[in-house]
Amino acid sequence: MFHFLDLIGTMAFALSGALTAMSKKMDPFGVFIIAFVTAVGGGTLRDILIGRTPVGWMLDLNYVYVIAVGFVLAIIFRKKFDKLRTSLFLFDTIGLGVFTLIGLEKGIHIGLHPIICVALGTMTACFGGVIRDILCTEIPVIFRREIYATLCILGGIVFFILRDLNLENDVLYLTTSSIIISLRLMAVKFKWYLPTLEKK
Amino acid sequence: MFHFLDLIGTMAFALSGALTAMSKKMDPFGVFIIAFVTAVGGGTLRDILIGRTPVGWMLDLNYVYVIAVGFVLAIIFRKKFDKLRTSLFLFDTIGLGVFTLIGLEKGIHIGLHPIICVALGTMTACFGGVIRDILCTEIPVIFRREIYATLCILGGIVFFILRDLNLENDVLYLTTSSIIISLRLMAVKFKWYLPTLEKK
Amino acid sequence: MFHFLDLIGTMAFALSGALTAMSKKMDPFGVFIIAFVTAVGGGTLRDILIGRTPVGWMLDLNYVYVIAVGFVLAIIFRKKFDKLRTSLFLFDTIGLGVFTLIGLEKGIHIGLHPIICVALGTMTACFGGVIRDILCTEIPVIFRREIYATLCILGGIVFFILRDLNLENDVLYLTTSSIIISLRLMAVKFKWYLPTLEKK
Repeated sequence: MFHFLDLIGTMAFALSGALTAMSKKMDPFGVFIIAFVTAVGGGTLRDILIGRTPVGWMLDLNYVYVIAVGFVLAIIFRKKFDKLRTSLFLFDTIGLGVFTLIGLEKGIHIGLHPIICVALGTMTACFGGVIRDILCTEIPVIFRREIYATLCILGGIVFFILRDLNLENDVLYLTTSSIIISLRLMAVKFKWYLPTLEKK
Repeated sequence: MFHFLDLIGTMAFALSGALTAMSKKMDPFGVFIIAFVTAVGGGTLRDILIGRTPVGWMLDLNYVYVIAVGFVLAIIFRKKFDKLRTSLFLFDTIGLGVFTLIGLEKGIHIGLHPIICVALGTMTACFGGVIRDILCTEIPVIFRREIYATLCILGGIVFFILRDLNLENDVLYLTTSSIIISLRLMAVKFKWYLPTLEKK
Repeated sequence: MFHFLDLIGTMAFALSGALTAMSKKMDPFGVFIIAFVTAVGGGTLRDILIGRTPVGWMLDLNYVYVIAVGFVLAIIFRKKFDKLRTSLFLFDTIGLGVFTLIGLEKGIHIGLHPIICVALGTMTACFGGVIRDILCTEIPVIFRREIYATLCILGGIVFFILRDLNLENDVLYLTTSSIIISLRLMAVKFKWYLPTLEKK
């Protein structure tokens, strides 16, 4: 079930990457690469930083297949995505919750400090998008106003608080990801934004 | 012979990096760094992703020396490179073929799936240029129209088909790199381009 | 003492990152990330390239705390930093000297060639700023005119010359960092610049 949601999230991220790349007038190769790094870039960065190599997608081809499907779907339906915006946003939000959990878990698994685990969760969920934006030469969207990464950090903190209460893993995972997902939905619905910090 | 071609390719990539950096009005340090990452960036990314560290150029100084020579040549002859464009393009194309093979081999060596090996070959040949473009804040040129990475993928597929026929390694290497190199020459001569994918 | 100077440098780099991010109108999350990568990005890249994982700041939370303090200070005093410019520059210069030494040492420790060690020292001191600039979609400032990385290279060369004279480690460290720091102060005071290399 968890792995299934992981793949759903991966496809949503791949679609969002492909759509961004097409709006930059890239060729099919560029679109595929942007879809790929958006989907697995965060987890890849995490794996590199903790020394878990070869990185995840090299050992589990399901990621590659799912991204390939997402890429093809993005090309075929590229003129209809405005209508699918809501479902895509929903999948992307599922990805946000699931990817955060995966990152948290990898950190716990090798015995890192909770603060670092929260950082790994946030990185897994958000840094694919950062790399996507850099490859498109844009200042990463999550650095500007959007409440996105902040929710992963919040979810990570909640995770460790609940963990100290000795909740079962299933409950723990479900609660954490539900919190991230529902806050994200509310943030978009009610237009919550972070303030920008300016020097004057 | 193979290692010699590798160094030829490295120098060609270093020259192309140095020329790009000079057109961006960088200082000598910037020019050297861009030459360096263009030449070894793809292989470095590959080594990091598969966990082959310290990365290649840290253990074989020949790369550093060849890049230094390329850097000096680029500075001395910087006003004459328009005339040398054809030879430079030829070297660059040799690099494309040889680097693809090197990436394929590293992947096979640690037992990765053929799809991942093709990805590693393409990355080795093309991602030095991607990092160069990012450091110059340009959208990577290989993501836009140019038939370049696609040939590495094609070459990689041919490689595995021929490998299944139990060809000898020498024949295998020669055929694969010849295909990549000759298709690249034809792509430029006959102005083959990939279509861009646009959303409307 | 050495570790203390390391943390001083880390905070100075974090402040400089935070100020750059605020001038780009980022939100608090973006400002924190830019502060973070400016401070530890160079060392992180070095650790990844030599395979020292999990990377440094994951195992020593002092870096995280110091960066967090720097981040908060940058936000509180963001309208007053023009007056603090001189102290900030001084701290940054200390960071430059200390970070170069740390990079040199890590390379020596795993037996790499002096040329590679000098590269690691320069990377540790300068590439946090490069990643900061890339995330802000600017061509890295150290690639354009400013004498900065060149001093790390120079300091590294002096380090290995003095080391061959069998100086004690303390003297060696003090001399190398003093040279880097004082040359940097002079470079700024007397407006020394590198020439840019242009193609015509």
